[in-house]
Amino acid sequence: MSTTHRSHTAGPRQQPQRASAPPGGPLALDRAAQDLLFRAARTANAFTDEPVGDEQVAAIHDLVRYAPTAYNGQPLRLLLVRSPGARDRLLPHLSSGNRAKTARAPLVVLAAADLDFHERLPELYPHRPQARDWLADPASRAAQARFNAALQIGFLLVGVRAAGLAAGPMAGFDAAGVTREFFPDGRHEALLVINVGRPGPQAWGERLPRLRTEEVIREI
Amino acid sequence: MSTTHRSHTAGPRQQPQRASAPPGGPLALDRAAQDLLFRAARTANAFTDEPVGDEQVAAIHDLVRYAPTAYNGQPLRLLLVRSPGARDRLLPHLSSGNRAKTARAPLVVLAAADLDFHERLPELYPHRPQARDWLADPASRAAQARFNAALQIGFLLVGVRAAGLAAGPMAGFDAAGVTREFFPDGRHEALLVINVGRPGPQAWGERLPRLRTEEVIREI
Repeated sequence: MSTTHRSHTAGPRQQPQRASAPPGGPLALDRAAQDLLFRAARTANAFTDEPVGDEQVAAIHDLVRYAPTAYNGQPLRLLLVRSPGARDRLLPHLSSGNRAKTARAPLVVLAAADLDFHERLPELYPHRPQARDWLADPASRAAQARFNAALQIGFLLVGVRAAGLAAGPMAGFDAAGVTREFFPDGRHEALLVINVGRPGPQAWGERLPRLRTEEVIREI
Repeated sequence: MSTTHRSHTAGPRQQPQRASAPPGGPLALDRAAQDLLFRAARTANAFTDEPVGDEQVAAIHDLVRYAPTAYNGQPLRLLLVRSPGARDRLLPHLSSGNRAKTARAPLVVLAAADLDFHERLPELYPHRPQARDWLADPASRAAQARFNAALQIGFLLVGVRAAGLAAGPMAGFDAAGVTREFFPDGRHEALLVINVGRPGPQAWGERLPRLRTEEVIREI
């Protein structure tokens, strides 16, 4: 660890982690990776039939498991909907426009928050095990669980792209219904349904407009 | 766009976006980029004095602006705390353990959600401009704003790393106080304070434990 620090601080232009970036460019990440993860990547609505295997899922998770979360709480949980029966139970809870594409996606992932993530803090945040007690209030804990799980989902979507796959995250579903159907233990809350696979024909339309930088970033 | 589809579907092994991955490996992203963005990247608590310039901020934003959000609503707003006066106004709202490192960080970013992001949907989601009216309820809209902004923050943290920098996201602050002090218009909510810079000596300790894959991912 300290070796990494020293190499970082030996000089402002010395960047051992730099991946073949053009010298002087503002990004350290090389252009192919920029495109793979960000610029060329798109939310997909159609996929090929190629399956998404357990090895790919494990590799994606191994990549994104280090995402930062408050108190290292890691509230995100993923349920892979693989069996046809499970998928049939899911489809009625989706908005009508999301059903056909989800019926055909190679893999459907239900992203949920563990609302009782604080129970694990004595292990996950061992230098301050009393953090568990700071999160005793269920409502503020649920808000923290949702927020940090959403941040983890951001990492997850980048991770799916790192595997050469496309994600199709969908908020158009009955969250209470999915929670009841797939997380009946009362401690989880469904947040997002994510189709995953290799993009097929007509996987997306024109890219939707983005806010201008000056609309998003201000300085004070 | 359709060219991209066809190259994707020409064969399951043909991956034009693949960035020099080892053949047969489950990830398309090359190992150097994996390390830069995920494996070697860490939440930093100390930074060098090297400034973070506007060019770097713009390059990071240009990379992560394409993050997917519900209705393409893009609720995340960023306030760069650059002036000493502004930083002095921020520090009292941070938990005591976060003050010294934030006082010295090259750049401090306040991440906030625009709770009235729906006003822009007729432009941002032009094929369904009535989406604005689906979000008329302030409470459920605020929940959507927080969730999607948090997902965007996940992308942002990866983007900071793509610039060869480290991020130090902090949830330990008085969110209501920061909102009042820096977003007095009543339509924004402070979500996270993020220090950004090149990691300095002792920037982090041991990596905290992560949940095992089987604790995070189940299959049905």
